[in-house]
Amino acid sequence: MNKKRIALLGSTGSIGTQALEVIEAHPERFAVAVLTAENNADLLIEQAVRFRPQEVVIGNEKLYHQVYAALQPLGIGVYAGAPALATVVESEGIDMVLTALVGYSGLLPTMHAIRAGKPIALANKETLVVAGEMITALAREHQVPIYPVDSEHSAIFQCLVGEEHNPIEKIILTASGGPFRGKTREYLATVTKAQALKHPNWSMGAKITIDSATLMNKGLEVIEAKWLFDLRPDQIDVVVHPQSIIHSLVQFEDGSLKAQLGLPDMRLPIQYALGYPERLPARFPRFDFAKYPSLTFEEPDRQTFRNLELAFEALDRGGNVPCIINAANEVAVAAFLRDELGFLEIAELIETCAAKVPYVPSPSYHDYVLTDQETRRLAQELVREKV
Amino acid sequence: MNKKRIALLGSTGSIGTQALEVIEAHPERFAVAVLTAENNADLLIEQAVRFRPQEVVIGNEKLYHQVYAALQPLGIGVYAGAPALATVVESEGIDMVLTALVGYSGLLPTMHAIRAGKPIALANKETLVVAGEMITALAREHQVPIYPVDSEHSAIFQCLVGEEHNPIEKIILTASGGPFRGKTREYLATVTKAQALKHPNWSMGAKITIDSATLMNKGLEVIEAKWLFDLRPDQIDVVVHPQSIIHSLVQFEDGSLKAQLGLPDMRLPIQYALGYPERLPARFPRFDFAKYPSLTFEEPDRQTFRNLELAFEALDRGGNVPCIINAANEVAVAAFLRDELGFLEIAELIETCAAKVPYVPSPSYHDYVLTDQETRRLAQELVREKV
Repeated sequence: MNKKRIALLGSTGSIGTQALEVIEAHPERFAVAVLTAENNADLLIEQAVRFRPQEVVIGNEKLYHQVYAALQPLGIGVYAGAPALATVVESEGIDMVLTALVGYSGLLPTMHAIRAGKPIALANKETLVVAGEMITALAREHQVPIYPVDSEHSAIFQCLVGEEHNPIEKIILTASGGPFRGKTREYLATVTKAQALKHPNWSMGAKITIDSATLMNKGLEVIEAKWLFDLRPDQIDVVVHPQSIIHSLVQFEDGSLKAQLGLPDMRLPIQYALGYPERLPARFPRFDFAKYPSLTFEEPDRQTFRNLELAFEALDRGGNVPCIINAANEVAVAAFLRDELGFLEIAELIETCAAKVPYVPSPSYHDYVLTDQETRRLAQELVREKV
Repeated sequence: MNKKRIALLGSTGSIGTQALEVIEAHPERFAVAVLTAENNADLLIEQAVRFRPQEVVIGNEKLYHQVYAALQPLGIGVYAGAPALATVVESEGIDMVLTALVGYSGLLPTMHAIRAGKPIALANKETLVVAGEMITALAREHQVPIYPVDSEHSAIFQCLVGEEHNPIEKIILTASGGPFRGKTREYLATVTKAQALKHPNWSMGAKITIDSATLMNKGLEVIEAKWLFDLRPDQIDVVVHPQSIIHSLVQFEDGSLKAQLGLPDMRLPIQYALGYPERLPARFPRFDFAKYPSLTFEEPDRQTFRNLELAFEALDRGGNVPCIINAANEVAVAAFLRDELGFLEIAELIETCAAKVPYVPSPSYHDYVLTDQETRRLAQELVREKV
């Protein structure tokens, strides 16, 4: 059997390093074709020495010489800069592209990969949040499958195999509720980034961990789900499930629900996306009901955690509004991580941007770029006014 | 689209009447070809007048004239007696056979249906408990699919669609625990049939309701699952889940679990089996997490509820042992319902029969018939010694 050759965009992040664990556990099935990183040259070099890709890209051009010096002698092609990051996916020696980039930066490489006909394993939800309509249309046009890596969307995808002819009545995305579940707005006004970075169940990167604490992550997932599974907003429910064992559910028109479950471990959905339709044997720890005698569920508190509400509103308004709230959120989270913004101010900043940035009903790629730039400019300005 | 013409064996029981509800809700998809009943002539006549099958069979020959007088004028063929019950499924005008008979009596008609090449919707688990090896071999030989109707096995079947190429690591059958969950043997020694007939979640016939109270129903389901899904005994787990919302789960070799969920409503698995692979739209009440904020799980108590242990032992020993415990259980439950046997004596009687009836390692159909007869004789004798 031929090995599937993977281009791994964002190999030094949380998803990237776990993807390499999966690849390493199945050397007969997978090979690494490309590795890319933005700034972590040391880890990129270490990974490339171990996995021997054809090519690596370091986003930060200042680090090019360091990477080149280490890898060129091994016969690995070394590139740097944003254009190289976007186009490296077009190489012939790539069978699948795993996009594990953070935020808006995933959009352009994903577009290039789709145009080059490469199946996508999508760990970068912002790509679909920002430009879901355009990306899914492009994928249809190029007959490129998009396999979700987010655990919730992977759960739904897993529940839908073999059910292609059966319409979805609704989906239920589960949310852990994050570290501040059940807290009041008074409490949230005082929380620090150290508290927000302590996720109860999942070990993830900083951006997504803060998004989990604000429930923005779930809001972005709602928008992502809309595009991945072609749903109306009223077909998407969110339920808080603090144990993160049921990863999400699908309800069909006969009233039957299917769910995918397991311990919170991102390696499983990563492996599923890389290996689809095959489930490769894996030694990940097994779920055991004896350790989870009770699985609990509650309504999300959309008043306290306003971001979820804002995401549903953005989905309803459509156009460039999801792009606005994504850009505003990226700026706000970065400012929160620099102690320049309070926890509750993240939602305030997003709401202001959504109200002020001009609405574009059917954006082109150029419109998305302009919306993203304009929103970031405004959001930065709003941050500066606070500090 | 041609309507699927259903032969409904056992139409006046709990599954039978619910199957007719499903058929009536989808007149464009289903028609009734055959109805059969053992003793309830009045309801059989009423159903036949409404659904206009080609043929009906009343098992009890004494009721033949009543049924004939009512239905012959409508052009419905009327038959009576065990041979007619067994062979009516062979008729050309039948596309699928739903076997909703109680206990051992389902075996022979199912064999005839398989030999006639009719797809089976199997609500009669005892058929596979008694003769699973023979029945599944026969179904393979005649390329006849068996669609489970039991909610647990339907759940597993639903989780396996689209996963045909992915080996099962294990399955987890959920059990409500019945009305006596958490009780001691001292308490169980005193329970009455009225208490045992009050199932917390499911409205079912008397036999299966008692089997649920003793956990024998779960034991029979373990054996049924072995044959339906070609599993080793160590691949079958049982977990008590008092809310009966998760109907069962499958774990794959990557560690991922899939579950099917819903309110306890037998119409859903009946409809799924009749309509497979399509999920027909249905107005069954929907599950809502708001009404089930906590789903709980616990180990079954196999010391107190010995039947589950006996079923696993029967599965390990194989041969005619499952047939023995099934026959002994049928006699014991009937005696319990006549107040001739105490609740705990049901398991005692089964254990004695399993120890005394001669072991046959690879039974033929004739061996099953003899085992069943011999076990019933012995079990009746044991009941008489008690009263």
